[in-house]
Amino acid sequence: MIDLLIEKIKKTENPAVAGLDPVIEMIPAYIKKQMFEIYGKTPEAAGAMFTEFNKAIIDAIYDLVPAVKPQIAMYECFGLAGLASYIDTVEYAKQKGLIVIGDIKRGDIASTAEAYSAHLGGSIIEGESYDIWKEDAITINPYFGTDGIAPFVDRCKKHDKGVFVLIRTSNKSSCELQDIIAEGQPLYLHVAALVKKWGGDLIGEQGYSRIGAVVGATHKEQGIALRKQLPQTFFLVPGYGAQGGIGADLKGYFDKDGLGSIVNSSRGIIAAWQKDKELAADPDLGPEFAEASRKAVIAMRRDLQFAMEG
Amino acid sequence: MIDLLIEKIKKTENPAVAGLDPVIEMIPAYIKKQMFEIYGKTPEAAGAMFTEFNKAIIDAIYDLVPAVKPQIAMYECFGLAGLASYIDTVEYAKQKGLIVIGDIKRGDIASTAEAYSAHLGGSIIEGESYDIWKEDAITINPYFGTDGIAPFVDRCKKHDKGVFVLIRTSNKSSCELQDIIAEGQPLYLHVAALVKKWGGDLIGEQGYSRIGAVVGATHKEQGIALRKQLPQTFFLVPGYGAQGGIGADLKGYFDKDGLGSIVNSSRGIIAAWQKDKELAADPDLGPEFAEASRKAVIAMRRDLQFAMEG
Repeated sequence: MIDLLIEKIKKTENPAVAGLDPVIEMIPAYIKKQMFEIYGKTPEAAGAMFTEFNKAIIDAIYDLVPAVKPQIAMYECFGLAGLASYIDTVEYAKQKGLIVIGDIKRGDIASTAEAYSAHLGGSIIEGESYDIWKEDAITINPYFGTDGIAPFVDRCKKHDKGVFVLIRTSNKSSCELQDIIAEGQPLYLHVAALVKKWGGDLIGEQGYSRIGAVVGATHKEQGIALRKQLPQTFFLVPGYGAQGGIGADLKGYFDKDGLGSIVNSSRGIIAAWQKDKELAADPDLGPEFAEASRKAVIAMRRDLQFAMEG
Repeated sequence: MIDLLIEKIKKTENPAVAGLDPVIEMIPAYIKKQMFEIYGKTPEAAGAMFTEFNKAIIDAIYDLVPAVKPQIAMYECFGLAGLASYIDTVEYAKQKGLIVIGDIKRGDIASTAEAYSAHLGGSIIEGESYDIWKEDAITINPYFGTDGIAPFVDRCKKHDKGVFVLIRTSNKSSCELQDIIAEGQPLYLHVAALVKKWGGDLIGEQGYSRIGAVVGATHKEQGIALRKQLPQTFFLVPGYGAQGGIGADLKGYFDKDGLGSIVNSSRGIIAAWQKDKELAADPDLGPEFAEASRKAVIAMRRDLQFAMEG
């Protein structure tokens, strides 16, 4: 998985990941109208409009990005109909050749983590295998320590999947626990040491492990220091764009070959049409709304290439 | 929610919570056979058998326990069919008058936590409200700090719901991060201080907050110390039974009135029939398997009453 991700980054010359985190307010009127007409104002309508919206965006950008990252919460809040859209989105993105990182941030004790690890390779029912969720990689929470992570690591090994463990998140209050000084260094560095250990046996051909880390764009010095401390850990970097990070902040998140990080943008890519005056004002706007997402990806690639070149 | 929980504990004279965490291996043969015949060896069969199994157990114990705690991972691993069973289980338990604690351990940045908070009171679609998940309370992960918790706290206030924030989990490796010494005290005490702060505005009539905490049964001294430090925080205590905790360990987890904690047992209650030689050997075993769960709850209540009396 990690070697394939790197191959795709090289091919697209782009470390940008599109965060497929729809909310109803971002859906163009023509899709909303269609789905409300079919399903009424129901969770089924929300799910159907998210699928339609995501497909249009994927169609517009699949040749430009290595991966997409749907945030499961945006779907889970609409129950089974929402989660059906999550699954359809994962499948469609994979058909288009994209790597799919499920942003699910699960974490629990070992027996429960084993159940959650069905996201990475599926479940077995009396000898029959079902891969239902189908993500290539997921995000996970480290608070339980090694035994809560082991089932995911096993799946990464067995099914060539990946995980990104939260080290340093992009939100403001992340400092409350993650920056607290423990035994001479901030907590997130203790997590970093564990991530390094967990990933030690799963290094791919390009020198990076299937066990990656989440390192926010909003903590520049920390990100740069982590890059040096974890030379074999691939970073998933949230917080770019709407959360405030820019490409110039990310110099040092990449290695000398311009690898080592993928950078997520959600609203900045998928809601780009709402910032385009012409598209936003068009009463007859159709699927061409997604052209704004394509432009946003191209602009983001340019911004990040500057950072990748170091 | 918290006052109702306390009322139910007093009425049942029982702080035991039944963890509805089914796996296929615990399902009696008559249910498995029925569902495999209808659905084949599919996720739909797994979901249907979990619902049937849970309903039989709820029927057998609903008058004896204040609450149940389904672990969503056990359902999520079977995709939408599994999650349909989770939702059906929550609904059925509520119909029987039980409080339902969804063990979902979600946690993320604010905008995402807002989406997850649909578990506590539902989602709105163009002015129409849908309460899909219907839990009375959920478990959440503190790693993101205050801004990731705030959306859940708002829902607790608005809809009289509850959360239990992970402070000290019951698994072995929990020590790796939770016990690390930061600024003179272990990390979990920093989390405890945050939990106290988050819950300060939501104290119910009985003196306990809607913002509770997860405190494992397997760390006895820590549990007792936390009880003293957090006199207004209700504890959800995992790790009893199959994970090694016993009632005698839990003296000190309760206040002088025998309140302040609910204690979860999953396998010990729901898989009790497999430890009953007669039931386990019966080739014609039917719904009476759940009588073993009833006996297990009664034995657990006796064991915990000893601890509650202090």
